Amino acid sequence: MEFLVRSENRLPVDTPAERREELRAGERARAVELRAAGVLKRLWRVPGRNATIGLYEAADPAELHDALMSLPMAPWLDITVEALATHPQERQ
Amino acid sequence: MEFLVRSENRLPVDTPAERREELRAGERARAVELRAAGVLKRLWRVPGRNATIGLYEAADPAELHDALMSLPMAPWLDITVEALATHPQERQ
Amino acid sequence: MEFLVRSENRLPVDTPAERREELRAGERARAVELRAAGVLKRLWRVPGRNATIGLYEAADPAELHDALMSLPMAPWLDITVEALATHPQERQ
Amino acid sequence: MEFLVRSENRLPVDTPAERREELRAGERARAVELRAAGVLKRLWRVPGRNATIGLYEAADPAELHDALMSLPMAPWLDITVEALATHPQERQ
Amino acid sequence: MEFLVRSENRLPVDTPAERREELRAGERARAVELRAAGVLKRLWRVPGRNATIGLYEAADPAELHDALMSLPMAPWLDITVEALATHPQERQ
Amino acid sequence: MEFLVRSENRLPVDTPAERREELRAGERARAVELRAAGVLKRLWRVPGRNATIGLYEAADPAELHDALMSLPMAPWLDITVEALATHPQERQ
Amino acid sequence: MEFLVRSENRLPVDTPAERREELRAGERARAVELRAAGVLKRLWRVPGRNATIGLYEAADPAELHDALMSLPMAPWLDITVEALATHPQERQ
Amino acid sequence: MEFLVRSENRLPVDTPAERREELRAGERARAVELRAAGVLKRLWRVPGRNATIGLYEAADPAELHDALMSLPMAPWLDITVEALATHPQERQ
Amino acid sequence: MEFLVRSENRLPVDTPAERREELRAGERARAVELRAAGVLKRLWRVPGRNATIGLYEAADPAELHDALMSLPMAPWLDITVEALATHPQERQ
Amino acid sequence: MEFLVRSENRLPVDTPAERREELRAGERARAVELRAAGVLKRLWRVPGRNATIGLYEAADPAELHDALMSLPMAPWLDITVEALATHPQERQ
Repeated sequence: MEFLVRSENRLPVDTPAERREELRAGERARAVELRAAGVLKRLWRVPGRNATIGLYEAADPAELHDALMSLPMAPWLDITVEALATHPQERQ
Repeated sequence: MEFLVRSENRLPVDTPAERREELRAGERARAVELRAAGVLKRLWRVPGRNATIGLYEAADPAELHDALMSLPMAPWLDITVEALATHPQERQ
Repeated sequence: MEFLVRSENRLPVDTPAERREELRAGERARAVELRAAGVLKRLWRVPGRNATIGLYEAADPAELHDALMSLPMAPWLDITVEALATHPQERQ
Repeated sequence: MEFLVRSENRLPVDTPAERREELRAGERARAVELRAAGVLKRLWRVPGRNATIGLYEAADPAELHDALMSLPMAPWLDITVEALATHPQERQ
Repeated sequence: MEFLVRSENRLPVDTPAERREELRAGERARAVELRAAGVLKRLWRVPGRNATIGLYEAADPAELHDALMSLPMAPWLDITVEALATHPQERQ
Repeated sequence: MEFLVRSENRLPVDTPAERREELRAGERARAVELRAAGVLKRLWRVPGRNATIGLYEAADPAELHDALMSLPMAPWLDITVEALATHPQERQ
Repeated sequence: MEFLVRSENRLPVDTPAERREELRAGERARAVELRAAGVLKRLWRVPGRNATIGLYEAADPAELHDALMSLPMAPWLDITVEALATHPQERQ
Repeated sequence: MEFLVRSENRLPVDTPAERREELRAGERARAVELRAAGVLKRLWRVPGRNATIGLYEAADPAELHDALMSLPMAPWLDITVEALATHPQERQ
Repeated sequence: MEFLVRSENRLPVDTPAERREELRAGERARAVELRAAGVLKRLWRVPGRNATIGLYEAADPAELHDALMSLPMAPWLDITVEALATHPQERQ
Repeated sequence: MEFLVRSENRLPVDTPAERREELRAGERARAVELRAAGVLKRLWRVPGRNATIGLYEAADPAELHDALMSLPMAPWLDITVEALATHPQERQ
């Protein structure tokens, strides 16, 4: 099933640049893995914000939760999830 | 997977009593079927309101949607759904 | 550019069934055209609601507006639009 | 009587790992006791968040308050409570 | 247990004066009964609005619900309920 | 005149236990005085929160303000006040 | 004591012009009386809306309520009231 | 001074096409006049909605109010206004 | 033109008493000047809060902004401004 | 395409004056560049707040995002963006 996931990044502004870059690199690497696994299907930036909107696929909300918590930035992310129902136009 | 479902009933106050009773009877009958099918697991009233909170189980959001739309009162219900993740304390 | 489009359908409950079906058929037909044109890329149902979330692509907000207003159901839709920025992970 | 309890965990991100684990272990232990006592009936995770939704039973709101405050994590929890009315379909 | 009950009266402005007065008289009479029964303990007007705030006492939310629904004006009332916990300062 | 007063206690979690207890003791002592003076008429806990709802009586909003500011915990309280109008059912 | 009063006028758009003018004339006449009585001290329009913000003075919320309900337009007004506390800078 | 003006058009969906066109034509004509007078400086559509955002200039809020109320569609518009302060970067 | 100005004071609770008193004294002195200049016309306390509602008069929003920023407490104030339109009842 | 951009400046109050002035100077310099490039078209202050409303033009949301992130103050800005559709009255 698919989920729409909004994520606001609350990493403090005064986080040292090195730590920030380390987290971002880890985030990118983990995102690549989640894409390869078919969990992360699309990702957009919310213009003007340190925030993203993502389209995810997972077996159920618990599996989605585990995927999101596996992101290195997870402790600083304020995430909201909407479960999406397949539209009849897209069923076959 | 389980869902928390809030439902506000917007049936107009001036609906004829006969029609209203017919809808309520149909609602009760369909709820019995959904309980028997294991879709409707718990149902509460929101005190003071013509509204309910229900705990539902369905294979995915689309199946839940179809179950909710099968309620005779559905056209007048303002429904919001939250997908729930199984808590590790309840997994085995 | 891509847009996330939420649409709540406010068609009155007492709309005659024939009129309602005519509108739905027109809606489906127009959606097929918008998909073929690459404007409507994905569509989901919000579970429990007469509402959808869609992923659209258009040259700019004015073109998106015209596409949305071309839906036969448009006069009854309460639509909100978010412009999405391409994420660096998806640029090449 | 039953209550629906939402709880957002605001424990600061920079809490030392040891202290965090100690609190979590205490939380789990206390939850087991509350389940055994019939106070905590169900618990779910809100996907993507350090938050839970729980179904509790207590004699009255004061007893529920005391149960919630007995959780080791209580000082960091942002809790909201809804009192649920038994639905006639579930009375006998 | 005690409850704080807010009630907004949505009776349509164009309700005939006779019907309106009949409802108000019924409301007053039922309120007198609920006071005598110890269910309605205090009642205030929200200044400037056709709305009240009431302090009620009932065995549980279901009993409160039945009391509120027994008001002749109930079909037009938009009610929200908060369950109140006895404060330690008032326990003995 | 009467006021409904909601108060959320924002005292930081890391306040030393001794300071916290000193403030609570002062709060209780001042509450006793306000009750004796007829200013604080009822007090409830909001279940699950470090928050209260109180029924106060004062000559006017300025006098109420001074009473609330006299609470030792006042600098940490997030207070909202509603002025209540006597209901005709309670006038004589 | 003084109150800040916001009032949104919900008179239906299709009210006959004659009835509308009659109500407006009555509203103006009653406002003149409330000014003369010292109850209505200032009145502003919210630009772009059929709405006003007023500064009122009354002995208590119940007296204010009666003054507001005496306006011929009252059944169509959506009013919210804030009780204002005299600021020490303006006490003498 | 300049104002940012949001306007949601609430003209009922079932307004006869002729009446609707008459109103729209009047709206366009009045807008042309307001532009010529330097009152309406820019106008945008909110994509997906029957709504606009406009940049207006007027001597004060009362003059702006009169300009907005002069629109033939005004009785059906839900308008909110923000007064804008000239930014030092644009003063000379 | 007149403005309604709400101001929440966010000065940290742990500001040293001396610094706090210095700021308050400066605030009072500046308020006296703004009153003398006809900019600050009325000021009220929001009961229960470290907050005020003020009625200001200024040539335009930029002049109002400068007046508000001239308050010594300005860096800690969370201010919202509404531009008020003169009501026809008060024009002559 | 054009965007309406709201920006609240959350730079901490206790930022050293020198650092604050350096950031402001950088902000002004970058704004001049964005104006010269036709990206920043208008800028207003929200009266009473350390906040602005701006009218921007960019090829798409990603280009706008990059422009906004190029502001030296960006890490402290809480920005929200609305994509504006050209109004037919302004197309030619």
